Amino acid sequence: MKRRAFNWSLFAASASLVFPFSRFQLRINGQRLNQHLSELAQFGKTPEGGTHRVAYSAEDLQARDYAMKLMREAKLEVSVDAAGNIVGRRAGSDAARKPLMIGSHIDSVPAGGSYDGQVGSMGAIEVAQTLAENNVRLRHPLEVVLFQNEEGGTIGSAALARPLTDKDLSIVTNSKKTIREGIQFIGGDPDKLASVVRKKGDLAGYVELHIEQGGLLHQEQINIGVVEGIVGVNWWEVTIDGFANHAGTTPMNQRKDALLAAAKYIDAVNRIVTSVPGRQVGTVGKIQAFPGAFNIVPGRVATSLGLRDLDAAKVQMLYEKIQAEVRQIEVATGTKFDFKQVTSSQPAPTDARFRRVIDEAARALGFTTKLLPSGAGHDAQEIAHLCPIGMIFIPSRDGISHSPREFSTPADITNGANVLLHTLLKLDAMNL
Amino acid sequence: MKRRAFNWSLFAASASLVFPFSRFQLRINGQRLNQHLSELAQFGKTPEGGTHRVAYSAEDLQARDYAMKLMREAKLEVSVDAAGNIVGRRAGSDAARKPLMIGSHIDSVPAGGSYDGQVGSMGAIEVAQTLAENNVRLRHPLEVVLFQNEEGGTIGSAALARPLTDKDLSIVTNSKKTIREGIQFIGGDPDKLASVVRKKGDLAGYVELHIEQGGLLHQEQINIGVVEGIVGVNWWEVTIDGFANHAGTTPMNQRKDALLAAAKYIDAVNRIVTSVPGRQVGTVGKIQAFPGAFNIVPGRVATSLGLRDLDAAKVQMLYEKIQAEVRQIEVATGTKFDFKQVTSSQPAPTDARFRRVIDEAARALGFTTKLLPSGAGHDAQEIAHLCPIGMIFIPSRDGISHSPREFSTPADITNGANVLLHTLLKLDAMNL
Repeated sequence: MKRRAFNWSLFAASASLVFPFSRFQLRINGQRLNQHLSELAQFGKTPEGGTHRVAYSAEDLQARDYAMKLMREAKLEVSVDAAGNIVGRRAGSDAARKPLMIGSHIDSVPAGGSYDGQVGSMGAIEVAQTLAENNVRLRHPLEVVLFQNEEGGTIGSAALARPLTDKDLSIVTNSKKTIREGIQFIGGDPDKLASVVRKKGDLAGYVELHIEQGGLLHQEQINIGVVEGIVGVNWWEVTIDGFANHAGTTPMNQRKDALLAAAKYIDAVNRIVTSVPGRQVGTVGKIQAFPGAFNIVPGRVATSLGLRDLDAAKVQMLYEKIQAEVRQIEVATGTKFDFKQVTSSQPAPTDARFRRVIDEAARALGFTTKLLPSGAGHDAQEIAHLCPIGMIFIPSRDGISHSPREFSTPADITNGANVLLHTLLKLDAMNL
Repeated sequence: MKRRAFNWSLFAASASLVFPFSRFQLRINGQRLNQHLSELAQFGKTPEGGTHRVAYSAEDLQARDYAMKLMREAKLEVSVDAAGNIVGRRAGSDAARKPLMIGSHIDSVPAGGSYDGQVGSMGAIEVAQTLAENNVRLRHPLEVVLFQNEEGGTIGSAALARPLTDKDLSIVTNSKKTIREGIQFIGGDPDKLASVVRKKGDLAGYVELHIEQGGLLHQEQINIGVVEGIVGVNWWEVTIDGFANHAGTTPMNQRKDALLAAAKYIDAVNRIVTSVPGRQVGTVGKIQAFPGAFNIVPGRVATSLGLRDLDAAKVQMLYEKIQAEVRQIEVATGTKFDFKQVTSSQPAPTDARFRRVIDEAARALGFTTKLLPSGAGHDAQEIAHLCPIGMIFIPSRDGISHSPREFSTPADITNGANVLLHTLLKLDAMNL
């Protein structure tokens, strides 16, 4: 309760006494930041103008070397932890304080873009460089972290929150290497992963700058998104059993058409998910009909369900509504549905204080802001197990992501890094 | 018009004068017929109890040798035509008459059953055997024909109706042989196909006995189906273009979900096809979503449409209704549909006189009958280009076909062959 009661007007007054006035005028070097992003994009550049730099690839290794060079230039003390994350440390002035962490990732999906993860990574390094150039010493130690293999399942950040299992390490990644082999390839040590795990309370907080990967900010022409939280992701494999039969000789009223049942189900998912207010999403992304011929009434369909929301109870409510409708579809079509949950991640809300600080930092810089959820997963959701987190979004053109067409303007990138810088300065002044 | 005015009561009276009374008491030997079917089923027998005897396979060749042996025992003059069809001839008493043809096929689909085509083939041979044993001489010459490769596209019967093209002959079949190679393999001569083509009027008529391959007769416990005609088959490849996007970050109201559009389309096809009376069928049997991941709103769907009916105008009407609804779905979902027709066969109605004769023959034998369409394709639809046709169906358990579970009872098989025999006798007495 003490924290909630923090007196902001008092802070603003005291801050101007404690810190030199110039600290609030600090700005990152936008030209340099965008230059760094452009240089980074050379590693794994595709003919379509995107980036193919999957974790543990040769391009990933080159990009990591490049990023470590920039981090040393920013006067960070650089190391690779046993999980393969790149960590750059800057000492704080108060030995009793836990570190503030900022960062993101520089690996990409196959044939992806040059902004996802990369804006936050180069932005965090630029913030450190700005602090160094201006001789600004924070009270908290600063850690700039580039997490390895975010796109393959937030592996590097997960390694801070919990010990990676043998099962995790055996996963074959897009690089064709297992995660174990990948960690060795990028300079980690899969036998010393215990050394990487942090305890709850070991960190004062984590802030990640990222492109929105959705179209809200771009569409509404808003500068900065203040992330409410990272939605829980729930995936089910759905199997529908009917009866395969000759499409020419089986009368319409004697069919048990698994694809007709699937059609009614897909339509129902859309109707149910959009029937209540909010920003929840429901998606059927996969489908296959068996045997899958012009000439045969499908006897089986394999399909999927994905539900995401910041509120796990709402996801459960939607799932139950879908189940109720599925029971009716089964009766109407003579089919049987089976749902098997394959992924379930809890929503990771951001910290209310961090949201307020980000919003204030952005407004103080003259930017418009909007509170919004992150529909995509991020390293921050893993770090949320350890400390309060915040996320800063910048606009992503047309919401396109994981594509060579992914794009954010240099101005928006500069704005985002300045908000990250001032968020960090404000958090550093707080008793976290 | 003369034929339509045929006086049936007069015929019945005159027939009993012209033919010895015993002709109407003739019965095929049901035990022998079922024994032959059982022996035939040994060629390509599968562990599941079905038959794998694709055209041009070693099993097909063995089965053909077996059938020719039976045909010779039935006193037929057996030859293999240039297209590879097995033709068994029995002379008629009236040199001016064109031949009456009966028959079917003995090739199967991969991993199929032991009844489709085989009942009609063994049944036709049994009819010839019965005539021979009883010294019944028809006025018309009789041709018992076992058409080759029905399951691969009614190839053998098509060769009677039109010259096979180089394109036809180049098709690679389930035997891995091209049709050209297959014809050579079974003793035909692909360079002499012109000799096989019949002219319209060369035949007095064609009658085929077949299992229903649908469940109507079995379900309603009816002995004999009198086939109204073979439906036209119309297939379209359907492509739906939307826009692929991140399933977590793209709000529901900003999606162009090709799979949601597909779901509405599949439901519409079912609703429209069942909205008018009749036995038309409409089927969506194939579907694929691209890219097809839990995590991505599908940007493209490849699916299908199949429409069948005895009335081509009704098919056109249904297709137009579907198109009208598709235009609405496009607007509602922000997608674009494309229909590409890949198959279009005209309905092949059976001859009204033949239907009447079959129905009377069946009733005279004490059987219940039902008029019904054939939803599946048959050799008869090719022969319909040359002469009037009729088809006799017997019940098929649960309507299951093209499966090891395909089954018709020995009694139903015997019944069907007796109806074929008496249909032939009645037709022989007519001025066709």
